[in-house]
Formats: sequence, C-alpha cells, structure tokens
Amino acid sequence: MIFFDNASTTKLSESAVDNLLKFSIEKFYNPSSVYLAGIENFKQIESVKKLICEKLNLKFDNNIIFTGSATEASNLAINGSFKKSFKKLLFSKGEHASVYSTAQNLQANGAEVDFINLQKNGEIDYIDLEKKLNPDVNFISIIHISNESGAINDLKKICLLKEKACPKALLHIDGVQAFGKIKTDFSNLNLDFYTISAHKIHGPKGLGILYVKNPDRLKPQIFGGGQEYSLRSGTENIASIMAFKTVLEEIGNSEQIENQFKNVLKLKQTFISRIKELIEKDIPISFIENENSSPYIISLSIPGLKGETLLRLCDSKGLLIGTGSACSSKKSGNRIFEAMVQPKKIIEGNIRISFSKYTTYDEIEQGSKILANCINELYFKLNHKNKSR
Amino acid sequence: MIFFDNASTTKLSESAVDNLLKFSIEKFYNPSSVYLAGIENFKQIESVKKLICEKLNLKFDNNIIFTGSATEASNLAINGSFKKSFKKLLFSKGEHASVYSTAQNLQANGAEVDFINLQKNGEIDYIDLEKKLNPDVNFISIIHISNESGAINDLKKICLLKEKACPKALLHIDGVQAFGKIKTDFSNLNLDFYTISAHKIHGPKGLGILYVKNPDRLKPQIFGGGQEYSLRSGTENIASIMAFKTVLEEIGNSEQIENQFKNVLKLKQTFISRIKELIEKDIPISFIENENSSPYIISLSIPGLKGETLLRLCDSKGLLIGTGSACSSKKSGNRIFEAMVQPKKIIEGNIRISFSKYTTYDEIEQGSKILANCINELYFKLNHKNKSR
Repeated sequence: MIFFDNASTTKLSESAVDNLLKFSIEKFYNPSSVYLAGIENFKQIESVKKLICEKLNLKFDNNIIFTGSATEASNLAINGSFKKSFKKLLFSKGEHASVYSTAQNLQANGAEVDFINLQKNGEIDYIDLEKKLNPDVNFISIIHISNESGAINDLKKICLLKEKACPKALLHIDGVQAFGKIKTDFSNLNLDFYTISAHKIHGPKGLGILYVKNPDRLKPQIFGGGQEYSLRSGTENIASIMAFKTVLEEIGNSEQIENQFKNVLKLKQTFISRIKELIEKDIPISFIENENSSPYIISLSIPGLKGETLLRLCDSKGLLIGTGSACSSKKSGNRIFEAMVQPKKIIEGNIRISFSKYTTYDEIEQGSKILANCINELYFKLNHKNKSR
Repeated sequence: MIFFDNASTTKLSESAVDNLLKFSIEKFYNPSSVYLAGIENFKQIESVKKLICEKLNLKFDNNIIFTGSATEASNLAINGSFKKSFKKLLFSKGEHASVYSTAQNLQANGAEVDFINLQKNGEIDYIDLEKKLNPDVNFISIIHISNESGAINDLKKICLLKEKACPKALLHIDGVQAFGKIKTDFSNLNLDFYTISAHKIHGPKGLGILYVKNPDRLKPQIFGGGQEYSLRSGTENIASIMAFKTVLEEIGNSEQIENQFKNVLKLKQTFISRIKELIEKDIPISFIENENSSPYIISLSIPGLKGETLLRLCDSKGLLIGTGSACSSKKSGNRIFEAMVQPKKIIEGNIRISFSKYTTYDEIEQGSKILANCINELYFKLNHKNKSR
C-alpha cells in the first residue's frame, strides 16, 4: 500500500514508540500529582513546550497549550479570544473546517464576520485582505499552508498589512500543514496564536498545540482541574506529549527543515513529471501550482473525471490519495476550490496527493504509475462511453 | 515503587499496547477518509462504541462521543445542553472540578446554579436533593463515585426523585471512578449523560467518553470537520480508541466486574486492618467510610498530621498516594471535605489511597507497612515537638 494522503494524517514515527510506551506503562504518572514522579512528568512537559518554542524561534513563557487536537487548539484561539464587544472578525475563505466552522458558528450567533477571498492559486487575495482590514477588525485567522491546494500564504505580508491597519487586532495562524515542514521563524512576526497538529508530522493523534502570545487574555473553553495554566483542563496526556518530543527532536533545526523541504520538492517534481509522461497525450491535466506551493501537497484535476471515482480506483490498486481534506471529504462540494474561482470540472476532478518526509523515490515511481494507469483507464472508459452515445 | 494513586491515573494495560501500536503505525489511517482503510477504521470505532453501550446495558444508537478527556466530556454534557432559557441547574457539592468549575463558570455568567449538600460520609444528601428538585430545574449533575471520599451515590434513588419532581430535567452522571469498577446497568435508569475516562481504568490518557441519550439536542462545543456526529470535531484518535477496546474486553461482563469488586474489597479490608495493626496504639486515625464506599478508594486522616507531609514522606519511601484528586491537590483547601462538614484537622490530615484491579496482596502488605511507618515517624516527631515546647 502506498500512502500519499499525509496531509490527512501520518503514521506515528517508529522512534516515537519508545517514549509513547515508556510514559504509558512505566512513567504513566499524572503530571499534576504532587509526588516526585508526577512533578518529573510535569517538568518533561515543560521541556517539550520549550522545544516547540525553539522551533518557532520564540521565547517560552508559559505560552504553549496542549489540547486534544489541532481543531480544539484553533477553536480555543478563536472562541477563547472572542468578546461580545468585537466589532469584526476576519477569516480567509481557505480556512480548514476547524476555523471556518467556528467562524460560521460565531456568525450564526450574531458576530460580525467577514471572509477574505482567495486567488486562483489558493493563496489569499492580499488586495482583498488590505481592503477588509480596518481599525474595527479585532480578530484575523489565516491558514499558513492550505490543506487543500498546498498554497503557502505570505505571513510577513499579512503581518505588515495588519500592523498598518489594525495593530491591536489578534492574529491567529493555523500552522497544521506548515509546522515541521517549512521554516517557522516567528521572531520578527507579531503572531498572537499559532496552531500545530502532532499527527500531521508523524506524532500521535489526539494532540494539538496552541502557541498563545498572551495567555492571560485568553478565556478557557474547557473547565476543570486547572491544567495548562487553567486554559485547558484535563489530565495532561504525558505519553502522547513525550512521543511528540521525539518527533520534534527528529525534525531538527531550521537548516534540516530547509534541506528536507528541498528533498520533498524534488520528490514532488519527479512525481509530476512522471505523471505527465505516463498519462495518454490527449488527457487534460490541471495542477494547482505556483512558486509558493508546499512541496508536500499536489493538487490536481483531470477535468471530466470525478475525483472520488479516481480515488476509489487508486484505492483498489493500493494507492491511497485524498480528495481535499479527509475531514470534509464526505461532504459534497468543495468551498475552498469554489473560493479559488476554479471551474466546476476542475473542482469535481480534484484529487490531493500528499507526501511525508519519509516518502521514498520508489514510492514516487510506483505511485505515479498506479495513478497514471488509473487516469488512463478511467479516461478511456469515459471517452468510450461518450463516443458510444 | 508502590502506586496507590489509581484514582488519579493508571498505568496503561500491557495488553492494550498491541492495538495502540498497530493503529499508530500500521493502521494509522484517518477514520474520516473515504478509502477502504479509513472506512475500516471508522467501523472499528463504531465497534468500540457498541462495546461501551454493552457495558452500560444501553442500546447503541450513535450516542457515544469520544472526546480528548473526561473533563471535556463532562463540559460537553453541561455546556452543550445549557440554554439561556434554563431556570435552574443543580450540581452536587461533591462534583469533580471538571463539573464543579463548569458550574461555577455558568454561575459567573448569570445562570441560576444551586449546589446539593453532602453527607458526612461523602454521599449526597438525598433530603437536600429532594428539597432542591422542582419543575424549574432543567439540569442536574451528580458524581457516581466520589474521587475524593470514594462514596457511591445511589443513582436509582436520584433518578426516582428526579422523575417525580422534574421529569424533563436533564441528568448527567460523572462515572469516571465507577465505569469498569462497579455494575453499570443503566437499562432501567433514565440517564441523559454519562461520562467515562479511559485512563482511570488502564486505558490511555487523552480519551474521554460521553454517553448521550439524545445527541440531536446537544450543541457542539468544538467545531470543525464534523466528526462524532458533528458534536466533537477533530481527527478521531483511532490508536487510543482501539487501545481502549482491549481494556473494555478485559473488563469483561457484569459478573466479572462484581467478582473484581469483591476482590478489591478484600484488598481494601486487608489494607485497613494492617494499618490499624501497624500504627502505634495512641495514634488517632479516621476513615471516611460507609457501606456504600468504593473498594478502590480509601480516604483517611491522621488528625494533627498534614496530609501533604505524610504524602511526601511516603513518596520518599517508595509509596505513591494522593491527597484528594491530583487535579486539585495543588490548590489549598478541600471544598469536598468541607462540604462533608468534616473538622479542619480531618480535612488537613486527609490522604487518599486508591487501588486498581491489578493491585496485589504483596503491594498491600508492603504499602501498609510503609504508610504505617511514615505515620508512626511523623506522629512521634509531632508529639516530641509538642512535648519539648
């Protein structure tokens, strides 16, 4: 089985197993206990938080909150910041459901919410952003890398526009597809929130992370024993946090991240050339691409073919791919590609191929063959059907 | 190290490791994906939900919601039910912080909240409950087994009183210290919500469960991809859920639970007799006990000694015990023992010893010796100090 759906979830790193088991079975102690074994676990959690801050090039100051998922982390950033006095909240049309649905819920409850348009390539429309930014804006949420198109939004540009128009507005960036994959040096950016997911980069599922610039100003959304600086109660998930520590260590420094970025970019380029070589010459193929795309995600369409049909045929041949995010793939339509003003045929034909740092050239070779064969087979059937009509 | 703080958290069952790793590394697929490996994981989750319903002797009807913790599950029951039109909400004074703090938050936001008194033995005061129940009550939350005193509340009695006074009110029971440890046949009880924690019964941390009678009437608290019947978004934690499946299988049927209850009761009785035998004759010792106590929890006080001092000395000798719940143990005071109208010396001297089904007689023997020695040592020092004054 070739797994090219790493934007949906990833396999746990095998080197993380040691910590996962050690802190499940041997050092399973409640980090909020007052005996030494508990206190030691609490300190271990602090060390992981420091490591996360290092990767963001930000100072650790009790500003990393562990949650039960990245969805919960983004919800906490938005709902924990929201005040009835907010005049306006801005979200991009390219947000993941965890942000988009939260925005829609606020809107349904009477908040003034507006959405920033997307460009055809999946990036936000910076001109539209600039137009919509004004001193009335209290909160902005923009995805770092689109989970659908792989487009990378320019955080520096976004921050500059925001600082000019509404310096007091809170800025949340959903970094789920970015953290650990591209450089995340935020020392010169004035971010208020940054969301990270463990299971998208070979960490365990059930672990989200929220960086919060000013924890004191955030309202908890889950009440209880007062864990995570009283911002997210519930027994600390020591085993998953320590498994994630191994993942963080494996990610390495920013140089290693950049090298890996280049490696995966080569894999992506190889995959795209192989697909172009292997599909029949008359088959139209459309890639959502620009210079600012993540090498980890390929978004492509065969106009005329349904993405889901292609996905299912690939599945039967041992290649697992996605159509948009797994979370929303069961729902009809695709609001993000619609926001990118893509033609209906491109939207319907869309599939997502997503790599991991562990993807091999052998998988690229085999996977591109399976995908090309499936495209050829379905396109032949489609044409045959059309001709025989 | 002897671990007698199982009410705080437990070691992951070693037989659960297989599933934990299998669904982290081999079958790590996103259960919301549309390819077969994802669909298969989704079906696995359904099978675990069915197993949970079997243990509750309730029909599975898309009414089990997996969350990131039991704290989140109880928060969801309360905040997901809450409506501004609610006239009154009732909580026992013996609720765990996950319920109590949520109640306090609603109260701080203007909701009409009242609290039910406790008896000296830790059970709720049924007469006070009856007094406070009336048709204006919309929501009631009562803990099944107190995490502090081990008192078991009489759910049958509570349900009867509720059905008589306010049949339409929603009833939430926090079953964190009960599920898997005592019989939970709810076929004849009209419960609306029941909270379960995986890590209190040798499952993984980071996994809570909420049984919901009418999921359609619950409002989600975390928005996103629409997982868990749109009531709790976030990628399903397949590895932890499947690890918990093994735990559920090990729990066995209600007969096995009752046998285990009897076994642990013998352990508890042995521990109590050993302590009484081993401590100096003139040392006062006070057990919070009644016929309706959980065999898994012993709550005791040495009036004059501080619980935390005793805990720390035990810790240094290799015995881990608790003072109240780990979650609240860092905070001063103990609202639950105060609600039980216990004298200040009893409250200050309180320690909690909590067993697991894996606790052995050897541990009981060793643990009781360490505890008795620590009590003797501290009491001698205390008396010596008093005399030399």
